[in-house]
Amino acid sequence: MSTFFSSKYDKLTPYTPGEQPQNMKYVKLNTNESPFNPSPKAQALAKEAIKNLQLYSDPVCGKLLDCVVKIYDVNRDEIMFVNGSDEALNFCVMAYCDDKTGAASADISYGFYPVIMSLNNVDYQTIPLKDDFTIDVNDYKNLGRTIFIANPNAPTGIALEPEAIEEIIKSNPNNIVVVDEAYVDFGANSCLPLIKKYDNVLVVQTFSKSRSLAGGRLGFVAGNPKLIQDLNTIRYSTNPYNINSVTMAAGVGALEDVDYFKSNCKTIAENRDYLVSGLNALGFNVLPSKANFVFAESNDISGLKLYQELKERGVLVRHFETGKIKNFNRITVGSKQQLDVLLNTIKEILKEKK
Amino acid sequence: MSTFFSSKYDKLTPYTPGEQPQNMKYVKLNTNESPFNPSPKAQALAKEAIKNLQLYSDPVCGKLLDCVVKIYDVNRDEIMFVNGSDEALNFCVMAYCDDKTGAASADISYGFYPVIMSLNNVDYQTIPLKDDFTIDVNDYKNLGRTIFIANPNAPTGIALEPEAIEEIIKSNPNNIVVVDEAYVDFGANSCLPLIKKYDNVLVVQTFSKSRSLAGGRLGFVAGNPKLIQDLNTIRYSTNPYNINSVTMAAGVGALEDVDYFKSNCKTIAENRDYLVSGLNALGFNVLPSKANFVFAESNDISGLKLYQELKERGVLVRHFETGKIKNFNRITVGSKQQLDVLLNTIKEILKEKK
Repeated sequence: MSTFFSSKYDKLTPYTPGEQPQNMKYVKLNTNESPFNPSPKAQALAKEAIKNLQLYSDPVCGKLLDCVVKIYDVNRDEIMFVNGSDEALNFCVMAYCDDKTGAASADISYGFYPVIMSLNNVDYQTIPLKDDFTIDVNDYKNLGRTIFIANPNAPTGIALEPEAIEEIIKSNPNNIVVVDEAYVDFGANSCLPLIKKYDNVLVVQTFSKSRSLAGGRLGFVAGNPKLIQDLNTIRYSTNPYNINSVTMAAGVGALEDVDYFKSNCKTIAENRDYLVSGLNALGFNVLPSKANFVFAESNDISGLKLYQELKERGVLVRHFETGKIKNFNRITVGSKQQLDVLLNTIKEILKEKK
Repeated sequence: MSTFFSSKYDKLTPYTPGEQPQNMKYVKLNTNESPFNPSPKAQALAKEAIKNLQLYSDPVCGKLLDCVVKIYDVNRDEIMFVNGSDEALNFCVMAYCDDKTGAASADISYGFYPVIMSLNNVDYQTIPLKDDFTIDVNDYKNLGRTIFIANPNAPTGIALEPEAIEEIIKSNPNNIVVVDEAYVDFGANSCLPLIKKYDNVLVVQTFSKSRSLAGGRLGFVAGNPKLIQDLNTIRYSTNPYNINSVTMAAGVGALEDVDYFKSNCKTIAENRDYLVSGLNALGFNVLPSKANFVFAESNDISGLKLYQELKERGVLVRHFETGKIKNFNRITVGSKQQLDVLLNTIKEILKEKK
């Protein structure tokens, strides 16, 4: 840190992304990427866009808007596209938290939340999950804070029904509820319909997981037109051309290729069942996941040790060495082939320990 | 604006990007894009990257760093890549301006500066240019503020020599000087060497203009390793995967294709001379530009009228209807063919007026 750096960041610890090894080959089950390449249509449109990269991208994201309104029951003025959903989450903190309005989220949730709260110097309350790692909706009623709910939650994978989230939205009419649906497409139900009914809910989605575009950086936030206007004010004041034109084209292809999307989501749900059965057979406790990852612990080996032993053998999973979750690992639902390598490697590790 | 939007943005007016018409065909000389497609190498590498967009991009930007240290006399820890240089400029305001440290720039400069100052609620001083639209270095000495200098300046195109900027850096040892070199490759001299000599200077460059990647969104900021560490703290706290992997690949190709880059910059400088001669012949006053645009006014037609008449005839230039510059238009140095269309259209317009 330099002596010039503003003291307002004295307590800021930046986010640590999951390991992204660039050289060594791993079976990579640590950052919830899709095991499927982008849809052929996404790839074809992206390729076409490369030739004209000398021209600025469309700051309005017109073609993406044209497309998204055909897929979801939303209007153009209810959607704003972002350079990955992390950008949207930070914009929400910027727009709806300040020295008068604090924020709240579950104590065990997406690790990026505390970072953006600290960055923006927000009074941030974390609300403990119940012992079974579920959210108690009553804890969120009449909070008087901007509320962030990852649904399904990360890293647990546990989902709430929209009806439960609706209770939270209804009981906080003077505050924004941000529903972070990064993993919604793998089996949970979306809160998107609620944006028509309430003026205080924002739904954030990403193309990184279910649409195989993690490397493209694309997401959107949906809400009442006035909220989208707020967020566009922030966007045009930080980085007006936030999305590049190849990603815009890929995003259009990914949205249009509905069959590919649905088929991949279905396969992931099937592979998730396969992974859970395999882990159960090895004695693991696995939380009930609706996401493209599972959160699992074993009584036979610590979470850290398992993570380390797997890494040594070329399999990457995500470990968080913190509090109530330190015996767990978060494991991405990859291809069946990847999951077989994982399960066999765990079997070996457990056998060696005996 | 919603009733939920934080009152801290009451005075915020977002940036208005230059027109990016998506349907109608214009001779587009309004946003300083390159008339050349991205280098063949950039295109080839970008194409390769599309297939694996399901994987996250490298947050460290390792390959871009490998490449940039071969081209410029910089070390890996002296560079941070960004999602377009606007992102870097905002990060600099976030990092080095607060309620104790204000900012300053020329009154006529990049229109994004006042926006990011307002966004971050910074005490912002604008320093008038001299009557000939040049910067008076003495105005910037011992300022006690974070200083932003676009060099060459936009929209004037006028460049300072690094020696002049060095005086500013030297006389403000307790403050950061940000040199915004978006247009430096077209004939001005870069302040990059100064980052080795001073711990209070940051140099921002973009791939949007000279490297034909406006649609890719890529730039970098160079400075002392401690400053780069500060900016990485901000980056990892706002959007850790800020750059997509296709753009990273294109950026590597654009850096490696040195001949293509040099040849294009040379052509733009030649075309600029051609444009200036043409405008002079039509009676225009053209400021001495080192950029890929010129700033020009005519006594025969107002800036606004010329902009409007050109637009009606299918030629887009950039007009700012403000103060001392409202008789001017900023015209991108395009291809010779584009410039011929522009010059002939201006000729027609002036003839019709007589």
